[in-house]
Amino acid sequence: MVGHISSTYDDELKSILRRISEMGGQAERIVARAVETLMRSDAEGAQAVVKEDKLLDAAQRELDEYAIRTIAKRQPMAQDLREIVGAIRISNDLERIGDLGKNIAKRVIAIHEHKQPVKLTRGLEHLSELALEQLKDVLDAYAVRDESRAERVRARDEEIDAMYTSIFRELLTYMMEDPRNITACTHLLFSAKNIERIGDHATNIAETIYYIKTGHQMELDRPKDDRTHAIVAPVKSD
Amino acid sequence: MVGHISSTYDDELKSILRRISEMGGQAERIVARAVETLMRSDAEGAQAVVKEDKLLDAAQRELDEYAIRTIAKRQPMAQDLREIVGAIRISNDLERIGDLGKNIAKRVIAIHEHKQPVKLTRGLEHLSELALEQLKDVLDAYAVRDESRAERVRARDEEIDAMYTSIFRELLTYMMEDPRNITACTHLLFSAKNIERIGDHATNIAETIYYIKTGHQMELDRPKDDRTHAIVAPVKSD
Repeated sequence: MVGHISSTYDDELKSILRRISEMGGQAERIVARAVETLMRSDAEGAQAVVKEDKLLDAAQRELDEYAIRTIAKRQPMAQDLREIVGAIRISNDLERIGDLGKNIAKRVIAIHEHKQPVKLTRGLEHLSELALEQLKDVLDAYAVRDESRAERVRARDEEIDAMYTSIFRELLTYMMEDPRNITACTHLLFSAKNIERIGDHATNIAETIYYIKTGHQMELDRPKDDRTHAIVAPVKSD
Repeated sequence: MVGHISSTYDDELKSILRRISEMGGQAERIVARAVETLMRSDAEGAQAVVKEDKLLDAAQRELDEYAIRTIAKRQPMAQDLREIVGAIRISNDLERIGDLGKNIAKRVIAIHEHKQPVKLTRGLEHLSELALEQLKDVLDAYAVRDESRAERVRARDEEIDAMYTSIFRELLTYMMEDPRNITACTHLLFSAKNIERIGDHATNIAETIYYIKTGHQMELDRPKDDRTHAIVAPVKSD
């Protein structure tokens, strides 16, 4: 290694942040492609998504090890320590986002021969657009350490939850209308749930950004869950 | 504080480990009670589960802050650092396990008036017994830092996945047999998925124990996912 100790430490921090930004890009691609393959019933594309997720898993493990080695070697304090602990948390969320995308892709591989009616998948496409926007926003907020932007991302998670709840209701209705829809709709229900969870992980990342910047945790008790628990008897749509 | 620096540090480490063990007990109770309330359609009990999960959330946030303060203050190396980083990870998994239990309880609150036929919930009860066994085993392995026991927990996750897959298939069949089962079975499907995820978190904890003890990560590429992706047309059960 070239340079005196403090510049090497800077290099290590920068390397951690660069890895997070790369992992963020990977996670976005995995989710975007997974949903595309679902829309197009594209099993081959879905296989590629599963492969890309393996790379993201490996990246997360590498980042984890690197970050812990850096803590041991440099013994950082205050914001530097929060940066590294924050990076470990964020990489964990990104890895989970990749997994959720991969799970959608795996369903595509299983059910691609049963082409979904566009009517059934359109809601899911909108939901994933919202989730990807949240993910992009929170990664941008991380890049510039903008904690108010992070707070806005967290506040917007409610929109995803609301849309997910309406998709849940809609899919139940299709199942009741025609039992031949049951298998496809069940897989779509789980895919929608995966996308809703991606929104939750974007929210976690927002909370971590706030923590890195301020040293405090955001307040508890924000609305985090889906509300489909409360759906008992969906209304027939026609 | 009484005592010289190193004994205080020991106290801090012990305090972290004691908190984890308490959180483990809370997580077990939340899951066990959530499933009980599901079996008995007990909305009041389910409310208590939701409350207990809030306590677990708060405990996790406290542990996180305490652990990071300890790293900053004590600048631990090697296994001590792994202990503390490991505790942060495990508390995160326990918090998620609590959430998954709470989600089941919330479904009970919503659908308790529609009593589930025992036939539908029996599989779920068995699944949750398996998951709780895994959770108990992995917490015991943590208490004595037994990484081979942790490895066995990870290996057994396949049993949960296999049982979940068969419950998924069974519930789809009930839905097709009688559309009046669709709403209840959908909620049970998600509850089953939550329990399967609890198994995954027990596996994560097993991996963390291995890491704390050895300084290495377990190999990637173990079977981790459910295989319900592949279920296209379930066989009629009768």
